Amino acid sequence: MNITTEQLFDNARTHNGFSSEPIAEATLKQLYELMKWGPTSANTSPARIVFVQSPAAKAKLLEAVSAGNHDKTRQAPVTAIIATDMEFYEKLPKLFPHADARSWFVGNQAMIDTTAFRNSSIQGGYFILAARALGLDCGPMSGFDNAKVDQAFFAGTPIKSNFLVNLGHGDPSKLFGRSPRLSFEEACRIE
Amino acid sequence: MNITTEQLFDNARTHNGFSSEPIAEATLKQLYELMKWGPTSANTSPARIVFVQSPAAKAKLLEAVSAGNHDKTRQAPVTAIIATDMEFYEKLPKLFPHADARSWFVGNQAMIDTTAFRNSSIQGGYFILAARALGLDCGPMSGFDNAKVDQAFFAGTPIKSNFLVNLGHGDPSKLFGRSPRLSFEEACRIE
Repeated sequence: MNITTEQLFDNARTHNGFSSEPIAEATLKQLYELMKWGPTSANTSPARIVFVQSPAAKAKLLEAVSAGNHDKTRQAPVTAIIATDMEFYEKLPKLFPHADARSWFVGNQAMIDTTAFRNSSIQGGYFILAARALGLDCGPMSGFDNAKVDQAFFAGTPIKSNFLVNLGHGDPSKLFGRSPRLSFEEACRIE
Repeated sequence: MNITTEQLFDNARTHNGFSSEPIAEATLKQLYELMKWGPTSANTSPARIVFVQSPAAKAKLLEAVSAGNHDKTRQAPVTAIIATDMEFYEKLPKLFPHADARSWFVGNQAMIDTTAFRNSSIQGGYFILAARALGLDCGPMSGFDNAKVDQAFFAGTPIKSNFLVNLGHGDPSKLFGRSPRLSFEEACRIE
């Protein structure tokens, strides 16, 4: 599918308001079918996603969202919970079939925690750019109560929320002025 | 710039061998100028990047890289260290000028650590896809000694290594068979 770097990077903005236009289920599936290909450490692929869409699920989520994120989260047709399977290594016999990769993790909690959080977050980056590739606008947020979201959506499982992404068709009138970025010299060096 | 989703996702592979073709400095700058636009929490933008290119810098890096990652890291014309500024909040008066965002972090080490690691990793995801958008092949790695890399490249600074990405033009003969991914039903649900 043809897209542009401007669509993913230069011209894309974090949206704070959304039209009521819904997102087709086929689009949510297409989004996952793109992002799933992004690389993760030993193909661990720890991200798990709940697309929160129904009024009942939205109401559960809104109870955990900070005041400043409330209106836009209610307005967005879908809010994705980007979450992390803290027992991702149980899927490695499928995901990394050519070695006993499960044994690299079991019993090493620090490595489990680091691998899970790093790679779930990297996959969150793929998710945002894949959504933009499909013409959706994003509003990523970490202003919410993770424990409340985990209780409401993942009770009794090893899955923990990482961050949230409002998805939909953005309302340009609600955009903030664009904030500056660090220059190449401030953020990078060539050695 | 026109690109395709296949180039970023479906057809892109993690490369284990690279041709000797170098990468122009202008391309490394273009890569940063794309990825910098990706959203981060409160525009914190904690990722810092060292593009390791010279023989002397490559030798320093190779001392910290695990045996299985040695040959490909030596071969790649550039290896990027994706790192994290653990004092990212000191840049917030520039990056988030419309509020005193620095004060949201100072004194809250748990929030600093979580924000730094989550957003540096998300930016690592943007980095990989921006590199692919520019026609570069990537080989991301977490098999290395972070403390040794920090000592060699970031001593006396608040910057810590996150993960590495070999960059260059991949050698298709060194590709492994593609590993499976989780199905939509295994990784996602719509609620």
